[in-house]
Amino acid sequence: MASQPYTYEHFNITFPPDHEYVAHVEINRPSKLNAFIEAMWLELSQIFTRLSTDPTVRAIVLSGAGPKAFTAGLDVHAAAEGTLSPESAQIDPARKATHLRRHIHDFQHCISAVEKCEKPVLVAMHGFALGLAIDLSVAADVRVCTEDVRFAVKEVDIGLAADIGTLSRLPKVVGSFGWVKEVSLTAREFGAAEALRVGFVTHVYKDKGAAVAGALGLASRMAGKSPVAVQGTKELLNWSRDRRVEDGLRYTAVWNSAALQTKDVEAALLSGIQKRKPTFEKL
Amino acid sequence: MASQPYTYEHFNITFPPDHEYVAHVEINRPSKLNAFIEAMWLELSQIFTRLSTDPTVRAIVLSGAGPKAFTAGLDVHAAAEGTLSPESAQIDPARKATHLRRHIHDFQHCISAVEKCEKPVLVAMHGFALGLAIDLSVAADVRVCTEDVRFAVKEVDIGLAADIGTLSRLPKVVGSFGWVKEVSLTAREFGAAEALRVGFVTHVYKDKGAAVAGALGLASRMAGKSPVAVQGTKELLNWSRDRRVEDGLRYTAVWNSAALQTKDVEAALLSGIQKRKPTFEKL
Amino acid sequence: MASQPYTYEHFNITFPPDHEYVAHVEINRPSKLNAFIEAMWLELSQIFTRLSTDPTVRAIVLSGAGPKAFTAGLDVHAAAEGTLSPESAQIDPARKATHLRRHIHDFQHCISAVEKCEKPVLVAMHGFALGLAIDLSVAADVRVCTEDVRFAVKEVDIGLAADIGTLSRLPKVVGSFGWVKEVSLTAREFGAAEALRVGFVTHVYKDKGAAVAGALGLASRMAGKSPVAVQGTKELLNWSRDRRVEDGLRYTAVWNSAALQTKDVEAALLSGIQKRKPTFEKL
Amino acid sequence: MASQPYTYEHFNITFPPDHEYVAHVEINRPSKLNAFIEAMWLELSQIFTRLSTDPTVRAIVLSGAGPKAFTAGLDVHAAAEGTLSPESAQIDPARKATHLRRHIHDFQHCISAVEKCEKPVLVAMHGFALGLAIDLSVAADVRVCTEDVRFAVKEVDIGLAADIGTLSRLPKVVGSFGWVKEVSLTAREFGAAEALRVGFVTHVYKDKGAAVAGALGLASRMAGKSPVAVQGTKELLNWSRDRRVEDGLRYTAVWNSAALQTKDVEAALLSGIQKRKPTFEKL
Amino acid sequence: MASQPYTYEHFNITFPPDHEYVAHVEINRPSKLNAFIEAMWLELSQIFTRLSTDPTVRAIVLSGAGPKAFTAGLDVHAAAEGTLSPESAQIDPARKATHLRRHIHDFQHCISAVEKCEKPVLVAMHGFALGLAIDLSVAADVRVCTEDVRFAVKEVDIGLAADIGTLSRLPKVVGSFGWVKEVSLTAREFGAAEALRVGFVTHVYKDKGAAVAGALGLASRMAGKSPVAVQGTKELLNWSRDRRVEDGLRYTAVWNSAALQTKDVEAALLSGIQKRKPTFEKL
Amino acid sequence: MASQPYTYEHFNITFPPDHEYVAHVEINRPSKLNAFIEAMWLELSQIFTRLSTDPTVRAIVLSGAGPKAFTAGLDVHAAAEGTLSPESAQIDPARKATHLRRHIHDFQHCISAVEKCEKPVLVAMHGFALGLAIDLSVAADVRVCTEDVRFAVKEVDIGLAADIGTLSRLPKVVGSFGWVKEVSLTAREFGAAEALRVGFVTHVYKDKGAAVAGALGLASRMAGKSPVAVQGTKELLNWSRDRRVEDGLRYTAVWNSAALQTKDVEAALLSGIQKRKPTFEKL
Repeated sequence: MASQPYTYEHFNITFPPDHEYVAHVEINRPSKLNAFIEAMWLELSQIFTRLSTDPTVRAIVLSGAGPKAFTAGLDVHAAAEGTLSPESAQIDPARKATHLRRHIHDFQHCISAVEKCEKPVLVAMHGFALGLAIDLSVAADVRVCTEDVRFAVKEVDIGLAADIGTLSRLPKVVGSFGWVKEVSLTAREFGAAEALRVGFVTHVYKDKGAAVAGALGLASRMAGKSPVAVQGTKELLNWSRDRRVEDGLRYTAVWNSAALQTKDVEAALLSGIQKRKPTFEKL
Repeated sequence: MASQPYTYEHFNITFPPDHEYVAHVEINRPSKLNAFIEAMWLELSQIFTRLSTDPTVRAIVLSGAGPKAFTAGLDVHAAAEGTLSPESAQIDPARKATHLRRHIHDFQHCISAVEKCEKPVLVAMHGFALGLAIDLSVAADVRVCTEDVRFAVKEVDIGLAADIGTLSRLPKVVGSFGWVKEVSLTAREFGAAEALRVGFVTHVYKDKGAAVAGALGLASRMAGKSPVAVQGTKELLNWSRDRRVEDGLRYTAVWNSAALQTKDVEAALLSGIQKRKPTFEKL
Repeated sequence: MASQPYTYEHFNITFPPDHEYVAHVEINRPSKLNAFIEAMWLELSQIFTRLSTDPTVRAIVLSGAGPKAFTAGLDVHAAAEGTLSPESAQIDPARKATHLRRHIHDFQHCISAVEKCEKPVLVAMHGFALGLAIDLSVAADVRVCTEDVRFAVKEVDIGLAADIGTLSRLPKVVGSFGWVKEVSLTAREFGAAEALRVGFVTHVYKDKGAAVAGALGLASRMAGKSPVAVQGTKELLNWSRDRRVEDGLRYTAVWNSAALQTKDVEAALLSGIQKRKPTFEKL
Repeated sequence: MASQPYTYEHFNITFPPDHEYVAHVEINRPSKLNAFIEAMWLELSQIFTRLSTDPTVRAIVLSGAGPKAFTAGLDVHAAAEGTLSPESAQIDPARKATHLRRHIHDFQHCISAVEKCEKPVLVAMHGFALGLAIDLSVAADVRVCTEDVRFAVKEVDIGLAADIGTLSRLPKVVGSFGWVKEVSLTAREFGAAEALRVGFVTHVYKDKGAAVAGALGLASRMAGKSPVAVQGTKELLNWSRDRRVEDGLRYTAVWNSAALQTKDVEAALLSGIQKRKPTFEKL
Repeated sequence: MASQPYTYEHFNITFPPDHEYVAHVEINRPSKLNAFIEAMWLELSQIFTRLSTDPTVRAIVLSGAGPKAFTAGLDVHAAAEGTLSPESAQIDPARKATHLRRHIHDFQHCISAVEKCEKPVLVAMHGFALGLAIDLSVAADVRVCTEDVRFAVKEVDIGLAADIGTLSRLPKVVGSFGWVKEVSLTAREFGAAEALRVGFVTHVYKDKGAAVAGALGLASRMAGKSPVAVQGTKELLNWSRDRRVEDGLRYTAVWNSAALQTKDVEAALLSGIQKRKPTFEKL
Repeated sequence: MASQPYTYEHFNITFPPDHEYVAHVEINRPSKLNAFIEAMWLELSQIFTRLSTDPTVRAIVLSGAGPKAFTAGLDVHAAAEGTLSPESAQIDPARKATHLRRHIHDFQHCISAVEKCEKPVLVAMHGFALGLAIDLSVAADVRVCTEDVRFAVKEVDIGLAADIGTLSRLPKVVGSFGWVKEVSLTAREFGAAEALRVGFVTHVYKDKGAAVAGALGLASRMAGKSPVAVQGTKELLNWSRDRRVEDGLRYTAVWNSAALQTKDVEAALLSGIQKRKPTFEKL
């Protein structure tokens, strides 16, 4: 962390001393159930863009501050001010569409910073995890939650189709397309057990402390491997998800034609033979 | 239903009075286990094309009449007459292929009317649900079933690869590709519990009455939301399923640049604040 | 098996007499936990390319010889010799990349022979099933295992991203993308119950004998159907997995415009009516 | 033409006696420069859908009646009535968008009937060929014109982006993307020589009579070949245009696995050896 | 230009008074033949990102300052310093690959700002137009040049495959793939006449003054149309270039479902009827 | 050529001494106008697969022996024997389709070896260049011809749609899709001037000697550049042709992350500064 501290208005960023190479990002607006205002997603994007190339970071955990919520989603009251303002009715609908499209693109772009981050991102969710919570968590790599979590794809309840990522990513994160449609079209809540059963989360923990600890443990495990191998794995899985098998294979071969030249393979092989923990150069 | 009644030879269409904006379509050939003849899939296509733009309909439930079957699939006896007719052997195989191809395209097109229907379609299945039952149900959005249901991807048993939708859609509806292959390559039966476990259905009900009631309940819930939001959600999920995340995001932004201009957002937000049920203009 | 016996150095190929039209391929290097050296994947490719068009074969079971492992993966000691050799450091990195890329392509191509094989391939896994075991099994159609199986996407542990198929195919074989990422990024082991829950395998058997018998049973069931229907089903499912629904439907219609002209449909229909087992011409 | 005459209000359909198997479709509203009203594109779609499977037709020529225009495009006066009507301003913009989207889809669908027609379609253009003339002609297979033709992608001049096909198809019909953008973004006219140079048309004729005769001559040439070969060629070129080479090759192999079983290959080979004109069964 | 002047170190941005709504961007490093250093492509990206949403701009012309060159390409001497530095040889090749990949992505991203700019961009090229000149110009919409221009895809001459856009975009800008390969694989020069013949440029002008004037004239013509129509046309052509026809049509319909609600259609239609120049609200 | 001579029955392979690193492959069956029999395409595939990784070869010229033809295409008399054989009529059409499909795939695979060859391939065509001549030449990188060449997409004349590559690749090699359709649907001949105008060939030479010399000259020019740069350029252009711009950019960045580490960049830069011809290590 030599250069500049990670200080942000709406997020706490810490580097847990017993989890080498792991960063912990906490959404920090607990008084409002961590609901997002525009300044927050702009910050979020800056944070993940920076962590992406920070050589002291190899895995990231994202969670929410306070006891009540990962995030209750978009701060609708703040957002509604623009939408409900009287003058907007007189604008040419095509011009208004242009402004809305640019705004949605910018917002999507901020959330996609989590997906584009070169390091694995694990999300630990507790309490309310509504609307934007889903958009945000499906842009991450691994999701875990507490027993008390309350998930919902909430957008149809406020008259809109989710447009920041849920409808594009949730069908690729969970196998049952019928389930994705049911929860997206009804906005009904679902809990930890259902989330585990359909594969939305991979682990359920007793409470928030355990969930964050569990996520940090998984993150540490990833951070202990060769960063060349781990970052390549994330990239190749994300590429392959959206493409046919043959394109996955071909891109992988080109990628590894450089990556396999790393000294990390030798380091990992030798430490495996010698039964000791390998160390890897920063990346 | 002002204009014209929904009267069809092989389907009952009703509008349950306690489920506003919900249409109930029933396959109605119970004496033959609701097996499909050509006239039926032509009607099916007409029905769903019409419901798609009927402003009094916001969600649709599809089920089968009679106690024994959702549908036993294609009426093989009727279909076999053409196939087994003696003269067909003398036709030029390339010309015969052209006629078969056109026929399959027409049949596929009829079943795809369920997928293209702008309103959500929920299928409640009981008893025999074989062959075409799978093709048909995977073109819908949400599937539920009874405890006694008997599912099978039956086509290899009659010497053919399923060609009306199962092989194209089932791998996108269920996460386990190995399971999809096992049931498609063996034609073995599977039941409600297995269907729930793999995510083919989202709910299992005691009997047919409960399954239809359950589907109507889910449909009502969808029909109570903004139709702009619900129809957008269906379209965006179907688009995204087949495309990469970035194309999902971009299409979503363009779609919502018009959809977010709806008055429904304001209506939904205000009714949320005022704790009352919103009403939305027809669509 | 008239022509030439199926004799290979590292594989046993047998044709179980009570399973007509079924071939059983056994990885046969049990002294090294069936770990793969280059000669083995070259042989593997030859075997499956040959079985693909052998008219006496309609389904294939792949398993590992010996009590301890399906396969422990790549023989790292053999592979490391090339990698760790001193001279390789002096080669121009771009030229070394070309050689590595060609090598990966060749290796991928061998494993893909399992996927390209026109007949269904079922894998029965027991004991250690690490690294290459996953790459190999996801190129097959159906996976089953024993209770004692120990799976792991092991590659990050030796400093590399899996490049022979796992990262391209596993996300398309299992619905939970978060689970795929967790096991790929941590290299942690997972067992039979977890594999069944996420849909990686479709059946778990008590021990190796039962697993192989189970796989042979499923294979027999497939081998008893029309080979036109079964081989078409495999091809159409693999095509559809990687493409959008409309391309799946269109390719299927063209495919079946020839396939439906088979006499097998008549044979299957008649034997269905006459309640007897149909026989089908070789393919 | 046994069954039913091809009688339409806005189109003349004739079958020139000296051009066996060729149909000639003429846009017939010369008093309005063949400008299109909604009834016309609905008729157009019916005509090409019918010709597509009419076994007496193997190639089609499309041209415009009267001396002045192929077509001046959309009849803007008729179209403007709906757009400029006062009440439409009060409609919810999202609901209006839904109605516009459905309308555009229907219109696109009608024009696409030309592309989907299984027989080759050649367009002979003269005089004004503006706006919709481009949308329509790029859905056809071959374009020819007169020396006096006046082409323009006219839509930006009336405040809209062309939405019935030009922007989707013109970049795939002409190699110079810069030229496509220049004419689409400026709406400037271009003539026969420029159209030939950029590859938009393949032949320029002195006048309308010569252009129609030229197109009929090319159509006759196509109609004299095996219809299995010609219709396959159209389909495979359209498929390949939009897909990668490997998918083109694979689809082609599946297509020809049925088509090569035609007796036409033998008929064509023998007539080639015997230096006589082959005859082919209808399709 | 109320807000902030367009002042940049390496670019002149002017707004020619006789070309309303047109911006003129000039590469301004004539002493070095307008060769690019890193600071320049960062500035270029900022400029086009800003022009993209500047409501006073509707079309942009890009040209090079000084009499000798549009741009001689990358400033190789500046770039070589990093590449040839001694320490870089000791870095782990996989880690070096990561740094190179990030660097190429950043550079590509800057050039892509020209393509992503919502307003049409016309490039007027004279003198040397080498290497990066091609990468840059193919990201624009329309290319024109002087008679004395000297084009070359120069990269293979310095030991590398062009990686900032030429190899990805040139095959989509010019129809003859053989020509694209010949000039890319030989690095040979080509001139104005050849560029016009293959469709790389759409107009050739006597000298630089005429080329810039010609480009400004075309830009003015675009700037005089509805910005809703023009910006939609650019977006829809770029989308369609990379996708199949049916996806082009569908995206277009969704796009225009908002865009057709513009008052510009009425303004354009009325001014057409009244034979006067329409005025359109800013966008 | 240390290892093994390039000796083949139907092809001459020479290494012109004044064209370092260039191989010249000549189709050598002049008594039959170089018409192809099955043994020839199998040899062709072996030759190009071998040249692809031969470090002494950097560019390849393909031409036809004898004065009369590049190749008159498939040897129809040889091919007809199988097709016209009486027994084939009794085979099940679906099984026959399987055999035909496998045969077409194998044939396509052989021709694709030219495209997959890592080194640039230039084709010099003279005299008859019919049917398979087009399939073959569009799999190459650059095409040139003599003034007397006689091209035709001949397949519809023998009752079939071209299935070895023309229909998949010609639309991607030539910009005018209407022209591609005209020549493919009519089988009409076209000559050198037309081929140059539409971009099918890039140069026309007086006679065969000049054409081969011209192709060797271009090949030499490519062979004089860094093989890392040239082979990368071929691969990246072929990849990009079939994919969207953003995938082209991304693959390029990954490719060059290894390729830019080559010493060839330094060699090329220094020799540029020192005005001397660079030498590059083999690849």
